[in-house]
Amino acid sequence: MQGKLLASATRTLVARLDELARVTDEAGVTTRTFLSPAMARANALVGSWMRESALDVREDTVGNLVGRLGGPGRRTLLLGSHLDTVRDAGRFDGPLGVLLPLAALDVLRAQGVTLPFAVEVVGFSDEEGVRFSSAYLGSKGFVGRLGAVDLAQRDPDGVTVGDVLNTRAGGTFVPPQAAHRARDLIGYVEVHIEQGPVLEAAGLAAGVVSAIAGQTRAKVTFTGKAGHAGTTPMGLRQDALAAAAEFVLAAERLAQGKGPLVATVGRITALPGAANVIPGRAELTLDVRHPQDAKRRAAFARILAAGRQIGRRRRVKFGVEVTQDNGAEACSPELTKVLAQSVKASQGRALSLPSGAGHDGVIMATLAPIAMLFVRCRDGLSHHPDEYVAPKDLGAALEIMVDFLPRLAARSSS
Amino acid sequence: MQGKLLASATRTLVARLDELARVTDEAGVTTRTFLSPAMARANALVGSWMRESALDVREDTVGNLVGRLGGPGRRTLLLGSHLDTVRDAGRFDGPLGVLLPLAALDVLRAQGVTLPFAVEVVGFSDEEGVRFSSAYLGSKGFVGRLGAVDLAQRDPDGVTVGDVLNTRAGGTFVPPQAAHRARDLIGYVEVHIEQGPVLEAAGLAAGVVSAIAGQTRAKVTFTGKAGHAGTTPMGLRQDALAAAAEFVLAAERLAQGKGPLVATVGRITALPGAANVIPGRAELTLDVRHPQDAKRRAAFARILAAGRQIGRRRRVKFGVEVTQDNGAEACSPELTKVLAQSVKASQGRALSLPSGAGHDGVIMATLAPIAMLFVRCRDGLSHHPDEYVAPKDLGAALEIMVDFLPRLAARSSS
Repeated sequence: MQGKLLASATRTLVARLDELARVTDEAGVTTRTFLSPAMARANALVGSWMRESALDVREDTVGNLVGRLGGPGRRTLLLGSHLDTVRDAGRFDGPLGVLLPLAALDVLRAQGVTLPFAVEVVGFSDEEGVRFSSAYLGSKGFVGRLGAVDLAQRDPDGVTVGDVLNTRAGGTFVPPQAAHRARDLIGYVEVHIEQGPVLEAAGLAAGVVSAIAGQTRAKVTFTGKAGHAGTTPMGLRQDALAAAAEFVLAAERLAQGKGPLVATVGRITALPGAANVIPGRAELTLDVRHPQDAKRRAAFARILAAGRQIGRRRRVKFGVEVTQDNGAEACSPELTKVLAQSVKASQGRALSLPSGAGHDGVIMATLAPIAMLFVRCRDGLSHHPDEYVAPKDLGAALEIMVDFLPRLAARSSS
Repeated sequence: MQGKLLASATRTLVARLDELARVTDEAGVTTRTFLSPAMARANALVGSWMRESALDVREDTVGNLVGRLGGPGRRTLLLGSHLDTVRDAGRFDGPLGVLLPLAALDVLRAQGVTLPFAVEVVGFSDEEGVRFSSAYLGSKGFVGRLGAVDLAQRDPDGVTVGDVLNTRAGGTFVPPQAAHRARDLIGYVEVHIEQGPVLEAAGLAAGVVSAIAGQTRAKVTFTGKAGHAGTTPMGLRQDALAAAAEFVLAAERLAQGKGPLVATVGRITALPGAANVIPGRAELTLDVRHPQDAKRRAAFARILAAGRQIGRRRRVKFGVEVTQDNGAEACSPELTKVLAQSVKASQGRALSLPSGAGHDGVIMATLAPIAMLFVRCRDGLSHHPDEYVAPKDLGAALEIMVDFLPRLAARSSS
């Protein structure tokens, strides 16, 4: 009986992941960014599935989609992840953590299981930070921590987060209060693909997360002097892009061979941006991560020092603006212990691993204890259309969640 | 009398250069690209000035503005330059070579001088190649050499030159024939700012050009593998931007200290272009110039070889597409001799210098003998809003052109 229910719910889950991947801002690929037209369509689609699962659905003022099962005033367990994506994304990063809990609730309902607490399934509106180079706008709004710095972030066209939210609110946007009081929450549990090779190497479908790596993001600029590409001798140039190129290589070199340390330049622009003009300005992003805060901060400082030195040597002005600085976040030992019991019940062994990627849990941890379930993905690949989770592994993750919710209920009431 | 006329015409010239600089696609700066809305407004404005000078005005199918003085069937002298600009441009690069001839014709008319040949003043629609990374679309159209390769060039949105011209023509664009038969042309003379430091160093307002440096432009791509910035270890990356950064520095290093050789990367894009995604693809432009074709070709080959080697070492695919390859172009000794006499008459000495920048004359030379007058600009600066020519030097250049036209007429009829 449980086997058949799980198999049927897994098929629905696979079909929904496929359908949601076709909701996109860019034809032919999957791209959904903060408050874009595709995000509105995604919220409408996922909202309709939430209603099929008998959830009460609402959307908050920053575009988070929330489906609630259970009346007001009850203690609440939050389950969720994000519905926005990177550009040219896969099907699982984010949506899995919204659609799998829905599938689990459907299975429990079919089994006649009722939970002694309310459940909210949340689809956050921004975790990837694609449009504004500043992540977690959705979860920050949900926990009431969307601040002036966030609202002042600009997209490449110069539009701020505040502008967008104001327009959406008809000119009257006020940063929201937290959606819940901390004491009303049991916790926040997120299901996510691992985005790394650990579970695949261990031959396991799922694992529990010990901690989420800290992450620093910055906008770096070099300002030299634009000039004619044909008439400015090489020796007289103040080429901002050449300085930026040195910086890209310095960031790579300083992170190389330092274990879990990673440093990435993902976006770069040379201005004015014509083939026959020496770039007078270069703008780029820097992303540095490490599970230990001290090591991350030291690496970030070393990379900036290299940038300053490059600027001095080339007579090009170096500038930096930190757009994000999240410390490493440990998961709740209590919640994680219950989740690990469910993992062990499903696959015999509960591997604990850190997360190199940031997740909404980083922000949710400011309001509630968090736990995360990682699901194996092929080649550890994510942020790519070839991102893949085997249906068998989706079934295993669903089985774990179906086991976890009543197990947590038993523990909460004991 | 001549002094007063020249002073008045110079004031008009300065005012018109200022007014034209305010015709732009980007508020607050001067930017006009091939067939953009601002280019249509620029053609309307300059066309109205041409009519004030009693010229018959037409616009051809690729957006070149042509004003003709003198009936059909007469031998014709072409005077001109381009009306498009780089992004955030100055006021002189291009417009000077269109508006100064108009001023000269006005002075001659006021003096009652008539020329024994027709004059066409041409404002080319594309010399800078900003939108399509392929320059000279205007002059190529004018001489009937706009080919399939030009029409297939794509802008960053994937729109081709052919698409744009077809839309403009209501779906029926046919590449134009040459505007003139070669035997009907006396020559093409272009007035342009030097964009370099030679005249300034020599203390001269103007000089004649001996030859235009050859120029190779290419689109270079590196294709690696996109991946998650937080979970892909440094050692397992195939980062296309890091490869591109090495290439930028290789191009700079290989051109350094090689005399008049220059190599420039003016535009770069990392894809997918998100702060938290390792770039899977990087696209950039390369521009290499030298007054000697053999040295230019050897340098270009050395830079490409470095790119290939970087690609191999990083397991990132290297690709290159040559978008432009213009040999060095010598100016006509006969035309230049007459022009040099006018320069000498004005300032006592006619300095001859090569042009490191490409000009419409490169393309016009396929149809007619060419000559170029260079005008001193401050700090050799161009392609920048601070680009500046002193009104005194504009007056000197105007005096030279007012002397040159009757001098050429005398020589032609002798």
